[in-house]
Amino acid sequence: MNFYIMTLFPDMIMNGLNTSIIGKAMEKNLLSINAIDIRDFTTDKHRHVDDYPYGGGAGMVMQAQPVYDCYKHVETLINENSENTKKARVLFMTPTGRTFNQDMAKELSTEDNLVFLCGHYEGIDKRVLDKIVTDEVSIGDFVLTGGELPAMVMIDAISRHIPGVLNNDVSAETETFTDNLLEYPQYTRPEVWEGEKVPDVLLSGHHANIEKWRREQSLLLTRELRPDLFEKVELTKKDKKFLEENK
Amino acid sequence: MNFYIMTLFPDMIMNGLNTSIIGKAMEKNLLSINAIDIRDFTTDKHRHVDDYPYGGGAGMVMQAQPVYDCYKHVETLINENSENTKKARVLFMTPTGRTFNQDMAKELSTEDNLVFLCGHYEGIDKRVLDKIVTDEVSIGDFVLTGGELPAMVMIDAISRHIPGVLNNDVSAETETFTDNLLEYPQYTRPEVWEGEKVPDVLLSGHHANIEKWRREQSLLLTRELRPDLFEKVELTKKDKKFLEENK
Repeated sequence: MNFYIMTLFPDMIMNGLNTSIIGKAMEKNLLSINAIDIRDFTTDKHRHVDDYPYGGGAGMVMQAQPVYDCYKHVETLINENSENTKKARVLFMTPTGRTFNQDMAKELSTEDNLVFLCGHYEGIDKRVLDKIVTDEVSIGDFVLTGGELPAMVMIDAISRHIPGVLNNDVSAETETFTDNLLEYPQYTRPEVWEGEKVPDVLLSGHHANIEKWRREQSLLLTRELRPDLFEKVELTKKDKKFLEENK
Repeated sequence: MNFYIMTLFPDMIMNGLNTSIIGKAMEKNLLSINAIDIRDFTTDKHRHVDDYPYGGGAGMVMQAQPVYDCYKHVETLINENSENTKKARVLFMTPTGRTFNQDMAKELSTEDNLVFLCGHYEGIDKRVLDKIVTDEVSIGDFVLTGGELPAMVMIDAISRHIPGVLNNDVSAETETFTDNLLEYPQYTRPEVWEGEKVPDVLLSGHHANIEKWRREQSLLLTRELRPDLFEKVELTKKDKKFLEENK
């Protein structure tokens, strides 16, 4: 899978994603991260990519031309690197977009190529967005300086679903949000730390009891912290009995 | 305002945040970003910070001791750098936390010091979380490799509310999510690009009409894309009339 990120801050993207699991996946050629500098496509001699908004107002707006020429270059790269002739989806990071979630991460992980467009300043000229963008996406209800961090967040979340990226494929499946349940608490050595002991059941070696305890903890946590998710959990008879007894 | 980030990837934090607006704010001493390596506090000779989870399961769990000792160090730094003796809030980035939003960003921007704890692997030993964490926070319903990207996202969103960080204080106020409205479309030069013209009203110089058009665009966009936000918008009589006519 190839990620192409159109940005004014290519170093930020490359430095932020080449550590840890994503870095290892790049070494294993499971994915590639290509950050392309929009500024390289400006025709302005001062390398400006922005100008004042028509109609007035604070801030600057990114111009259509450099963004569009950058996109054309990305299209060429995709055609060179990929046998897939399907047009790649172009995701624009904007607080007005559809809210990104785990299902979207899973769905996007099946693409061969994904293009991210990162805005800065007060936005990007609407005409180029209309021309190239296929999906407007937001990572949440808050405003950020630019689209780089959201793009990195999405790339990280998507990459975890590409086979081979996580050491054990089990891991992505047993995590929070699978089954709409929050994850149970975790403990590791030592058994006693600062006077606090690991719950006995986890030391018992009794697998069925451990599974039971973990599911119960997840149920309690989800009911308390995320009633919106809890509503969607498929409860077994045992779950219902346990929850009834622990109101 | 001082941000302290407890992490296994301090370079990722520093590289990701020293560009753009946050970088300038650091130069102006409006804020400081201090990434502290949890690994520096391990007592293990191989510098391991993680171990197998009690009760079994995939992945590794970060141990309580290095996290706690790192926190103690951060406490010392805060006491040295700040006259404020109030205990700093410690935010743990976890998908099970409260969902971060613009109101939370605003509220947190009034703190003098903020500590972020970034997990990796399958989580952190619950005992140290119970001991030091004051707020569990999530940036959305998706799973990431670590807490670094969410911490950077939050720091970016929070910093924008610190006076002086944005060039014009107006900017943060007129943005998306203020008034629960999505932002209107933006245009900049040239007037005609690839055959597409800027809307006439924006070229008219008639400020009242421009304001009216922009509000109407915001209303239409919000109604279409984010009915959940739209419900909370305080509609004027004029708004209601316009929306009725443009169903």
